[in-house]
Amino acid sequence: MTATIITIGDEILIGQIVDTNSAWMGNLLNLHGISIREIVSISDDETQIKDSLALASKHSDLVLITGGLGPTKDDITKKAMADYFGVGMDFHEPTWERIKKMFAKWGRSTTPAHKEQCFMPSNAKILFNKMGTAPGMLFEENERLFVSMPGVPYEMKYILEHQLLPVLKEKLGKVFLEHRTILTVGEGESRIASRLESIEENLPAHIKLAYLPGLGQVRLRLSGKSTNESLLKSEIEALKKAIVEEISELVYGFDKDNLATEVGGKMTNHGLRLGLAESCTGGYIASQITQNSGASAYFEGGVVVYSNELKERLLDVNTATLESHGAVSEEVVTEMVKGTLNKLSADIALAVSGIAGPTGGTADKPVGTIWLAVGNKDRIVTQRLNLSKDRVQNIKYTGVAALNMIRKFLLEFKFN
Amino acid sequence: MTATIITIGDEILIGQIVDTNSAWMGNLLNLHGISIREIVSISDDETQIKDSLALASKHSDLVLITGGLGPTKDDITKKAMADYFGVGMDFHEPTWERIKKMFAKWGRSTTPAHKEQCFMPSNAKILFNKMGTAPGMLFEENERLFVSMPGVPYEMKYILEHQLLPVLKEKLGKVFLEHRTILTVGEGESRIASRLESIEENLPAHIKLAYLPGLGQVRLRLSGKSTNESLLKSEIEALKKAIVEEISELVYGFDKDNLATEVGGKMTNHGLRLGLAESCTGGYIASQITQNSGASAYFEGGVVVYSNELKERLLDVNTATLESHGAVSEEVVTEMVKGTLNKLSADIALAVSGIAGPTGGTADKPVGTIWLAVGNKDRIVTQRLNLSKDRVQNIKYTGVAALNMIRKFLLEFKFN
Repeated sequence: MTATIITIGDEILIGQIVDTNSAWMGNLLNLHGISIREIVSISDDETQIKDSLALASKHSDLVLITGGLGPTKDDITKKAMADYFGVGMDFHEPTWERIKKMFAKWGRSTTPAHKEQCFMPSNAKILFNKMGTAPGMLFEENERLFVSMPGVPYEMKYILEHQLLPVLKEKLGKVFLEHRTILTVGEGESRIASRLESIEENLPAHIKLAYLPGLGQVRLRLSGKSTNESLLKSEIEALKKAIVEEISELVYGFDKDNLATEVGGKMTNHGLRLGLAESCTGGYIASQITQNSGASAYFEGGVVVYSNELKERLLDVNTATLESHGAVSEEVVTEMVKGTLNKLSADIALAVSGIAGPTGGTADKPVGTIWLAVGNKDRIVTQRLNLSKDRVQNIKYTGVAALNMIRKFLLEFKFN
Repeated sequence: MTATIITIGDEILIGQIVDTNSAWMGNLLNLHGISIREIVSISDDETQIKDSLALASKHSDLVLITGGLGPTKDDITKKAMADYFGVGMDFHEPTWERIKKMFAKWGRSTTPAHKEQCFMPSNAKILFNKMGTAPGMLFEENERLFVSMPGVPYEMKYILEHQLLPVLKEKLGKVFLEHRTILTVGEGESRIASRLESIEENLPAHIKLAYLPGLGQVRLRLSGKSTNESLLKSEIEALKKAIVEEISELVYGFDKDNLATEVGGKMTNHGLRLGLAESCTGGYIASQITQNSGASAYFEGGVVVYSNELKERLLDVNTATLESHGAVSEEVVTEMVKGTLNKLSADIALAVSGIAGPTGGTADKPVGTIWLAVGNKDRIVTQRLNLSKDRVQNIKYTGVAALNMIRKFLLEFKFN
C-alpha cells in the first residue's frame, strides 16, 4: 500500500512551525508496511487542496490529510473535500452532542463556529476524536481511502492509532510485520556496518536492516514481513541475538529505551544513588536524566559549578589543582568526582569540565576539549573528548558520552 | 515571487528525520517577500524528481531543491536535473581542486565517489559551498530559477544565505522589506490581541502584524513592504513604539534576543551573579541559561537538589519546614533561595520545587503544582503555578516562568 500525506495550513509554509506530524505518520505507517510516496504541504486554499487530492489519488491507495478542521474561518478543508467528491454537507448530531457535553464539563459555552464544525461531507464516515472537538473523516472512492484529521499532533495521533489503524490493518490483510530496534552507543554507523557485514549479507529477502544514526548513537532496526507470524518472530529474534553478540559492548537497550532510563534502571535495581558535577554542560546532563519520570529512584541530585570558586566551595576542589592544571583537566574532574561523592553522599558520581565554545579555547585546549570522570569510592575512570566548534552540539554530545561512561562503569561494577 | 520547496530523500518519508530545513527556508524567504506555495518531500527517484520539477515550474518562479547530492549511490538528483533540462554533465575542475584540498588538510584521501561529485549538469551555475563537498547549483529557464542544494542543514543554510540570497535580492528589485519582532512573555495570544485591537485596526495596508505563539511566550512580528525605504523604516519604528507602550510589562526584547540572554545581559551590566536551586526542573533552567555563550559573565552556578536530603545538606533547608509544609511549598522554595544566596554566594537566587508528573500528585497538590521563588538579601518574591499533566511541558513552561520572574525582579531592583 502506498500513501501520500497532505498537510494543510500556512503555519508550515511560512516556517512558523516545523512539520513533525508527517515524520510521525511516516514512521508509524512504515512499521505497518505502508510506504509514503510523497509529503505535500499546502496553504488553506480550496483549489490547491482539490488539485492535491486529485494528484495524490493518481499514485496512492491512501491519502492522509491533516489540518484545516478548526473553527476559524480560514479552515476550509471540509468544504474542499465535499466539492472534490461532489457531495453536500450533513449535520452530524452525535458530534454536536459530544462538543456540547465537553464545553458543559469545562463550564464554557459553545459558539456558532462550534456548531459549524459539525457539518460534514455527506459521504464521510466519522472517526471519533477523544482529544478535541473536530472528528476525523474517512472517505472511500474506487478502493482508495482518504482520511482527514485535525493538525493538532495529539488529536491526529489518537485518530490515526485508535480509529484508522484498525481499518488499515483489515485492508492490508494477513501479512504480519515484525520490528525490533537495537540501540547502540559509542561507535559510528560505518564501523558498525563493517562489523555486521556477514550478517547483512546473509539476511533473508523478507527481512531488512536499517541504520538510524543520531548524535553519538546508532539505532539498528530489523523489519520483517511474512504470512507466517511465528516463523517471522523467531527469525527476527535470532538475528537480533546474532547482532547483539557481534557488537555486545555497544548495545544498551531495545526499542523504546533511552540511555538515561537504561542507566537509571540498573542503578535503581542495585539501590545505587547518582550524583553529578557539571561545569561546561551547565545542567544539561541533569536535565536529560530528570526528563524521565522515576529519576528520583536513583538520582540524588547535582551541582552546576560554573565558576571556579563554586568548584572549590561546593566540591572542595583544591585551589592549587585549579591553578596548576586549569579547570579543564583530568585532575580537576577527578577531584570533582571525589567532592560529589562526599558532599552529595552519592554512590556513583560523574563530573565534567570543558570548553563548550565558541570562545575560551587555547592552543593546547581548543574549543571542544572536554574532560569527564566517573567513579565511586574505590575507582575513578577519566576520558578526554575532542569535539567540534559548535557549542550546542558539544554539550549534547557530551551528554551522550557521559551517560555511556556511567553505563560502562556499571557494567564493570562489583555489585554487593 | 512564489516558490516551491522540494526535499529529496527517503529519510523524511520514513520518518527517520523531521524536515526542519523547509521551515527555516520558508521563514527566511518570507522575510524577503517570497511566499512558499508548496513544500514537497519525495524519494530519491529519478522520475518522481522530474515530475515534481515540472509541476513546480508551472506555478512557481523559484524552485528550491534540497538533498540527493551526497557521494552515495542513491543520490541521483544531479542526473535527474540534467535530464530534466536536456543537457549533459561537465566535470567542474575548481570543485575537484577544492575537495582535494579539503581532504589533504584533514589528512584523508578522496575516493572515486568524490570525483563523481564534481560532474555537474552543463547548464548549472555553481554556488560555492564553504561548509562541505557538494556545491549548490543554480539553473535559469524561462525567467524561472531552480536551485539545488545539499540537505545537510548548515550547508544548505550557508549556500542559501551567502550565495543565493544576493541573486534573489537583485531579481526582486527595488522593493524594500522591513521586519521587526517584539518578544513578549507572560500573556496569551488572544489577550495581547485584544489590547492591541486599535493599533491593528489602524495598520496601513502595506504593514502586517503576525502573532507567533510559543510556550509561555508570544512573538509579534511587524512586516512592511514599500518602495520608500526610509519612510517604511520610520513607520515600522513608530508602530513598534506604540505596541511596546501598550503592553510594556510583557516586552522583554526584540528580534533575535531570548529570555536567558536578556536576563543575562542585564545582570552582566550591573555586575550581579545568579545562583539557581532546582528540584522538579532537574537542571533544565541551568541548561537553558548555559546554552548561550557568555553565561559565565553572570551565572555563578546552581544545585539540582532532587532529594529532600540534598535540600538540607546543600542549602540548609530546615527538616522541620520540609516535614510540616512538604518539599513543594512556598516555605521551602523561600528557604532554598536563602540557602542559595549563602552557599553559592550569589547576588540573586531563583529556586523551584514542584510536581512535574506524571505521578506524585495529591488532592491539594496535583501534578503540575510548582512553587517558584526569586530574591536577594533584601527581598524574596514567590509564585505558584498550576500546570498540566505532561511532565516535559511542565518543566519547559516552568523554565520560561522562572526566567520571567528573574526579569521582573530585575525591573524592580534598586541598582547601586
